[in-house]
Amino acid sequence: MSTARLSGFPEWLPADRIVEERVLDRLKYTFEMNGFAALHTRAVEPLSALAKDGEIDKEVFAVSRLHAEEGESVKNPLGLHFDLTVPFARYVVENAGHLAFPFKRYQIQPVWRGERPQDGRYREFVQADIDIVAEDTLADHFEVEIPLVMAQAFDALSELGVPGVRILANNRKLLEGFSRGLGLEDVTAVLRCIDKYDKIGPEKVAELLAQQAGADAAQQQQLLALAAIESSSGAFADEVTALGVEHPLLSEGLESLTRLLDAANRQQPGVVVAQLKIARGLDYYTGSVYETQLLGHESLGSVASGGRYDSLATNGKKTYPGVGMSLGVSRLMSRLVGKNRVVEASRSVPTAVLVAVTDEARREESVELARRLRARGIPTDVAPAAAKFGKQIRFADRRGIPFVWFVDGETGHEVKDIRSGEQVTADPEIWAPAEDDLWPSIRRVTQDA
Amino acid sequence: MSTARLSGFPEWLPADRIVEERVLDRLKYTFEMNGFAALHTRAVEPLSALAKDGEIDKEVFAVSRLHAEEGESVKNPLGLHFDLTVPFARYVVENAGHLAFPFKRYQIQPVWRGERPQDGRYREFVQADIDIVAEDTLADHFEVEIPLVMAQAFDALSELGVPGVRILANNRKLLEGFSRGLGLEDVTAVLRCIDKYDKIGPEKVAELLAQQAGADAAQQQQLLALAAIESSSGAFADEVTALGVEHPLLSEGLESLTRLLDAANRQQPGVVVAQLKIARGLDYYTGSVYETQLLGHESLGSVASGGRYDSLATNGKKTYPGVGMSLGVSRLMSRLVGKNRVVEASRSVPTAVLVAVTDEARREESVELARRLRARGIPTDVAPAAAKFGKQIRFADRRGIPFVWFVDGETGHEVKDIRSGEQVTADPEIWAPAEDDLWPSIRRVTQDA
Repeated sequence: MSTARLSGFPEWLPADRIVEERVLDRLKYTFEMNGFAALHTRAVEPLSALAKDGEIDKEVFAVSRLHAEEGESVKNPLGLHFDLTVPFARYVVENAGHLAFPFKRYQIQPVWRGERPQDGRYREFVQADIDIVAEDTLADHFEVEIPLVMAQAFDALSELGVPGVRILANNRKLLEGFSRGLGLEDVTAVLRCIDKYDKIGPEKVAELLAQQAGADAAQQQQLLALAAIESSSGAFADEVTALGVEHPLLSEGLESLTRLLDAANRQQPGVVVAQLKIARGLDYYTGSVYETQLLGHESLGSVASGGRYDSLATNGKKTYPGVGMSLGVSRLMSRLVGKNRVVEASRSVPTAVLVAVTDEARREESVELARRLRARGIPTDVAPAAAKFGKQIRFADRRGIPFVWFVDGETGHEVKDIRSGEQVTADPEIWAPAEDDLWPSIRRVTQDA
Repeated sequence: MSTARLSGFPEWLPADRIVEERVLDRLKYTFEMNGFAALHTRAVEPLSALAKDGEIDKEVFAVSRLHAEEGESVKNPLGLHFDLTVPFARYVVENAGHLAFPFKRYQIQPVWRGERPQDGRYREFVQADIDIVAEDTLADHFEVEIPLVMAQAFDALSELGVPGVRILANNRKLLEGFSRGLGLEDVTAVLRCIDKYDKIGPEKVAELLAQQAGADAAQQQQLLALAAIESSSGAFADEVTALGVEHPLLSEGLESLTRLLDAANRQQPGVVVAQLKIARGLDYYTGSVYETQLLGHESLGSVASGGRYDSLATNGKKTYPGVGMSLGVSRLMSRLVGKNRVVEASRSVPTAVLVAVTDEARREESVELARRLRARGIPTDVAPAAAKFGKQIRFADRRGIPFVWFVDGETGHEVKDIRSGEQVTADPEIWAPAEDDLWPSIRRVTQDA
């Protein structure tokens, strides 16, 4: 269950934080297995760097010293980052001399947006990003790698109760080439209209295309026909070609998207689907764009999005084109442990063994026993008070701690599995919990059953 | 090496982030071994919650929506948290009904302070906190547990090149009782003066005590005599008693500090030292207070501080007394990988094996081989381009990747240890790197040698 006395700023209870930690551990493992280096950037950026992309400035939280010295906030106003891509691009440019390109990094941090909080949408939320940036030119195969690593990451999460995903792909060049081929030169306006397809439906998109991009009826029809195309194989290219629009960028985009679909189908069949209405809101994408549907939770919106950005990271002289995706950890968590909880941790503490205390004067015997178990890698805590053993057992039970250790049972050391009630003699240098009990486990919750 | 184009907002290069991740992993492991549950709180708090403690309001960063709706920022102004104790206390009060007390948690997050950046002092920095809170009353043995767990944490860091530590302890009751016993009732003023002992020296403290606490010459001398007492055993109590001051709070404080020193000396001899000039700046401490010196880096200031706070977490009706310490991860990092670097990671990427690509048309053979190695838990990457093998080997070398895999050597699969140059036939289902090479290792750097 989450607590959010400040609307949009979720906090999890301890047992649910264990779920989140497991999610993060699996993401880290998958990303590192694939050669991505862990990176962190600071939480703040100059406002000028945050506000330059489209309408994003409306969502930014500004940061200023409460007692700023005269003129300080005016000189260099700061804001909290609203994603991890813009700070990463800035980091790459600043540190280019110390990085080896192509550079692959993952980054798991909170980001902040001043939007109205809704289901699965927060003002502070954790994102897990992977990106690859190169110097000058970025090979196309990286546009294949990114969504397939993301698919692997979701695969690694499936044991934690995360449903399967469909990664939806499109290509900005394809959309841009198609628009220009139709004679529509305000591509940004076209993208903005297409991006609303799922939200407002094709008829309203047609109206918008007329109003905002100056599209006539024929152009509207062509764009809607394009946007409706969806395919899990390279076959979509024929459908696009059949629309009879021609432009060099369209050909480039088609080729790139076909390559992605073909490679994805060979390597992880079915997980990537071409969906030509995918446009993405952010201005900086220049090639592939991706969104991700959580199967059965399509209304949640995309849980992992991104794309290729050729010109985001630049110092004017040199450019570092990149491609990446961002997984919405908090949004996933809203489904895993939210109102219709899917999973729960087997306990609310890391502790596997609680060492009972017989007498406060002999507490240090229990502390010493706990030290010995910890030295053997067993998470152990000591009872907070030398209460009656029944109360000490209830202390363990409330937290889901499976074992209680008695340092001076009738036969010396004894350990009780408080689930079965079984109590056995135990040697602190030998006894160990079952592997499943050593750390908290994550289990599915059966709702309405 | 750190990059900080924004003064006070450090960012680490990829190899140094590996060091930081190792530091964090060891801290997490130690804390979880001792029964502390992982927790995160949001980054923002109402300004009213942040500004109520002493002079802290001067250091707070305020947060506001850049395009706030009319009146929004006035209704509920927010700030970034400056520590993890205040948000934790708020979280405990808000979620008390869902928590099991005594509640032990650890929390590793950035905090923000608008102070002037200096060596080891940042405006954004990572803290690792452990705290124990109880309902109504907190047993004294938790005041022993907290510094000893922190000592274990530093012990776990010693393999990563972190020097040994001395945890300095005092007790606010001791200081308060001594002051009141001397007839000085403005205890806050006395504490503030004593707190400056190391910074300005005893003579200046005496002057301050006169000016700010109204202490006469005899009272000044007594307080300076107290502040000079230091002992690694319970013997300090006799020295205090010899000063002839009496007050019930002084006795309580002496007893508590003696108990801490005695238990610490039995459990981890020598690590905790009573130092009666330790006062801590924050208003909310009411019992034990702790600071931690990094041996050989005493000028860095405390690397782990905290204390007991009896009244911080309260909803007016119910109080949750707590005790905790906060380890300055960024401050430690400033010593580990700063100007006089102590350690370095053996490579800048997680990757153990780079799979070479013979021909772009056959890239997927290398991708497939990488998949097989990853499935066996070996972090693997694929060369970015089918360049000459010499260039692909240099790609691995620049990143410190120890092995390059050739999918079609003369005898089939071959793997080269690029450090020794040795190249052997390898079966992708059997071959594995040496355990030391599987993940990046942390090694000491010999400076000026």
